Amino acid sequence: MIDANMNGWEAGVRKVVPYTPGEQPKNKNIIKLNTNENPYGPSNEALKALEGMDMDEARRYPDPTASELVKALADYYSVDENQVFVGVGSDDVLGMCFMTFFNQTNERGERLPILFPDITYSFYPVWADMLGIPYETKALKDDFTIDAADYNGPNGGIVIPNPNAPTAIYMAKAFVEDIVKNNPSSIVIIDEAYIDFAPQGSSVIDLIDKYDNLIVVRTYSKSRSMAGLRIGYAISNPKIIKFINDVKYSYNSYTMNAPSIKLGAAVVKDEEYFRETISKIVKTREEFAEKIKGLGFTVLPSSANFVFASPPEGYTAEELFEECKKRGIYVRYFKQPRINNFLRITIGKEQDMRTVYEFFKDFLTR
Amino acid sequence: MIDANMNGWEAGVRKVVPYTPGEQPKNKNIIKLNTNENPYGPSNEALKALEGMDMDEARRYPDPTASELVKALADYYSVDENQVFVGVGSDDVLGMCFMTFFNQTNERGERLPILFPDITYSFYPVWADMLGIPYETKALKDDFTIDAADYNGPNGGIVIPNPNAPTAIYMAKAFVEDIVKNNPSSIVIIDEAYIDFAPQGSSVIDLIDKYDNLIVVRTYSKSRSMAGLRIGYAISNPKIIKFINDVKYSYNSYTMNAPSIKLGAAVVKDEEYFRETISKIVKTREEFAEKIKGLGFTVLPSSANFVFASPPEGYTAEELFEECKKRGIYVRYFKQPRINNFLRITIGKEQDMRTVYEFFKDFLTR
Repeated sequence: MIDANMNGWEAGVRKVVPYTPGEQPKNKNIIKLNTNENPYGPSNEALKALEGMDMDEARRYPDPTASELVKALADYYSVDENQVFVGVGSDDVLGMCFMTFFNQTNERGERLPILFPDITYSFYPVWADMLGIPYETKALKDDFTIDAADYNGPNGGIVIPNPNAPTAIYMAKAFVEDIVKNNPSSIVIIDEAYIDFAPQGSSVIDLIDKYDNLIVVRTYSKSRSMAGLRIGYAISNPKIIKFINDVKYSYNSYTMNAPSIKLGAAVVKDEEYFRETISKIVKTREEFAEKIKGLGFTVLPSSANFVFASPPEGYTAEELFEECKKRGIYVRYFKQPRINNFLRITIGKEQDMRTVYEFFKDFLTR
Repeated sequence: MIDANMNGWEAGVRKVVPYTPGEQPKNKNIIKLNTNENPYGPSNEALKALEGMDMDEARRYPDPTASELVKALADYYSVDENQVFVGVGSDDVLGMCFMTFFNQTNERGERLPILFPDITYSFYPVWADMLGIPYETKALKDDFTIDAADYNGPNGGIVIPNPNAPTAIYMAKAFVEDIVKNNPSSIVIIDEAYIDFAPQGSSVIDLIDKYDNLIVVRTYSKSRSMAGLRIGYAISNPKIIKFINDVKYSYNSYTMNAPSIKLGAAVVKDEEYFRETISKIVKTREEFAEKIKGLGFTVLPSSANFVFASPPEGYTAEELFEECKKRGIYVRYFKQPRINNFLRITIGKEQDMRTVYEFFKDFLTR
């Protein structure tokens, strides 16, 4: 990480290979299905909260505890306020958790590797590298599901997204619980960024009082349609939340700005709109998956707001990715082993997905 | 930092003593002079920008490069866009700089300590502890000024605020330049959070092209009246900015949310209002300092939006702090060696400072 062969101040620079986020093109006419944003806007409560903001809130420091937002989330999940940590998107929350908990050593003082799947959110290895945390990836099975047996050995912590990304595949709650139960000496982070698009009752939030080593991480960027406000949170027991908050207060006391606290607290009150948009996305997802299967695509079973799909024989995901881009359709392509013939396609509005389908159909039957 | 005597996952927890920010009381009737906020609201451009926001900006991920904000700052300071780094307040910017640059070792592979004054922004040692960076503090002289000779030895980096906090004392530009020049193998961070309240021409921003080891850090929380939006920035050469950005993208790709980008870019366009509010604060500061000197206070020469003042003999800063609080006047008191008989008093509106003065007068002549 640190290059000792350099002279002067450059020798002390932490050199890293940064994460590459999906493109954020400035042209608004494209069909943007590359960063798993929600095609529907946030609840009207967000707009009302924005309109209700006064400039005195801009002038003053925000509440460092973000208590208005924390309270709204605690009420929503029926937990105590000291069981909620909020951050600048779930990336900040996950980064803080890595920094706080992944410093385990064995009896010889050697750092223990943390574990996560070989195919998963590509930020996990980036945080590990940046923070000097050793890690081991565990290969998904051939059907892209997780093998629970892989997570039974000694480790310095475990991170698993449920549903996993970019596969979109979901694990049953009992399966997740087994991993948590089998690792009482490790912090287990379940990254539920996409769980609201999975069958209801899939979340392990209700297990946080049963196991003292479980952290559930969530985001406003997908199901809550508020990627632009940068809000993520963790739900866990008070002890764990205090440890994360201590590290957070040692880095930046005021991470959540006034608009994020205010809009974040406002939208959780609108359950009806939340359920309605999720239902629409799930319905569109199922229809789209069926239709492209009809064109010969392989589509992994999705419990998220995107599908992971491989084109029929004779075509490559990479060429399709490039062709889509030419037509103003942005999807995500990962040029990496095992998944380099898949596209990750965010579920947009019905009309967007019809356009994508029509394009695929035209292209495959030229 | 890591406690190896614990069992289970707790052994791997990064245990820290977090920074304690000034209180953010929820009662709006108090006179809040404890966190160096600007008493005047932000430019009207902020409100216009907020009103111009649409919910599609809340829905989408923000631009990870925050280019609208970066461009506005680059234009304002006549530097290139690749010479500007933006973060979630200057705390985030400083934390990222500590993480990126303060990893220097000597020829035996031992970490070199970073240097900063013994009396200074209390977050510096907190970041160092959190990140495992060794540090040495250099005692301010008896008159609370910095001794430049202290910053000539081998070191792993230097951080100096100008004006310093909580002393409010400002160093001449040539003095700062000497420190930068004498340490070509170290990154020197000049934390100019309060520089806009110092005489014009005091900033070292114009030296960034002359020295390759200089980083100037600024904030929107004081002179720009936007503490609630959490915006800070660093100005340096493109190489340094790229190193910081690489680490930032390895931690959180999208740190600046849509409102902070938009409002931050908007307010720098209103130079007139900016100059006007600064003039008012400087005028009020000078008047207030003179008046409390008349009551027997010792007041350090201030080039910031606060004064650092010690009560006349027979009174302690601590009792004055408590008495102020009882009357709804919040100021800041640091119970630490050398400065435990001083109060840091933010400069509010003229009326606020009159109230504080009257209270001091009453209290001292009971």
